[in-house]
Amino acid sequence: MSNNNRVTNNLATHNLYVALIHYPVMNKKQMPIGSALTTIDMHDIARASMTFGIKGFYVVTPYKDQAVLANQVIEHWTKGAGGVVNPDRKKALELIQVTETFEEAVNDIKTKTSEPVISIATTAKETIGSLTITELRQKLKDKAPHVICFGTAWGLTEEFIDDCDLTLDPIYGSAEYNHLSVRSAASIYLDRIINGR
Amino acid sequence: MSNNNRVTNNLATHNLYVALIHYPVMNKKQMPIGSALTTIDMHDIARASMTFGIKGFYVVTPYKDQAVLANQVIEHWTKGAGGVVNPDRKKALELIQVTETFEEAVNDIKTKTSEPVISIATTAKETIGSLTITELRQKLKDKAPHVICFGTAWGLTEEFIDDCDLTLDPIYGSAEYNHLSVRSAASIYLDRIINGR
Repeated sequence: MSNNNRVTNNLATHNLYVALIHYPVMNKKQMPIGSALTTIDMHDIARASMTFGIKGFYVVTPYKDQAVLANQVIEHWTKGAGGVVNPDRKKALELIQVTETFEEAVNDIKTKTSEPVISIATTAKETIGSLTITELRQKLKDKAPHVICFGTAWGLTEEFIDDCDLTLDPIYGSAEYNHLSVRSAASIYLDRIINGR
Repeated sequence: MSNNNRVTNNLATHNLYVALIHYPVMNKKQMPIGSALTTIDMHDIARASMTFGIKGFYVVTPYKDQAVLANQVIEHWTKGAGGVVNPDRKKALELIQVTETFEEAVNDIKTKTSEPVISIATTAKETIGSLTITELRQKLKDKAPHVICFGTAWGLTEEFIDDCDLTLDPIYGSAEYNHLSVRSAASIYLDRIINGR
């Protein structure tokens, strides 16, 4: 299902990749599920990834029909009529690669960079030992490629978060409410990471 | 068309309001147009507004059918089945008020606060005299209510921007590309304004 030979973001200044996870994530009852693709997530997160110099954006779904849909969207904007009408959107969507599992995404980065990959979880919940943005920025100075994971639906499962090498602090506003869309959360995290806090 | 008596965000810590403008905005040929409502903009920007303690969120559209649609979405989530299923979404959507014009939104804030309202434009383009986030944060310490405007489609028209009291610096990433969705841009701006840069 993966669409290889995508253009790597030449403007990328950090060794940072993004993964949008559709399995395993939580439903609103905190049960692990696989979620359906929301195509606007692909657009918004690709455009933010391009803006903030991300090297590649993996859309991770184990469902074949969802992977077909994701690749149809990508094709339309990178090779079809969409890219002619909107070349900026073409550039952004070229960053996307669809994989069946997160491991496949990590292995792809490993192959491209010949380096071990550091995985970073994001969550709206407090996690013991989670990193501040400043701490992550320090780690990004290393040679190792990093991949930051965003969970669709009600977020990444605890098991997935535990399996990641690092976890980032949640995004807090000024209120006791942090129910951001994954599109908003990813945009804010990338801005914070690239531009500093 | 406006849905008055919405709950004001009690968690709001700044005297800041948000307006999502559907007219006058630019099309991709830089001609002034009115844009169609994208309902996910309402959800994403309402959730970000709630997270960052925004006092109210105005969806501005001159088109009656679009205003009806916007109010149907709000009703579903605040008074219909949506709010029962997802109370967090209910709280966010309660922040929204639909107005026909930006002036109507400004007058509503003026009525609520009995203070003159300062309008702030956002744009992806360089603008002479635009403010940094730090400069805006300084101004927000004043008593005056401020309303930050986000343009749909290809952004606010130059005339609209000129008519605003203030303009904010564009969002830059690490790359020579800043084609963010209005959902991403609004989320990043609110995070920067509330949490500082």
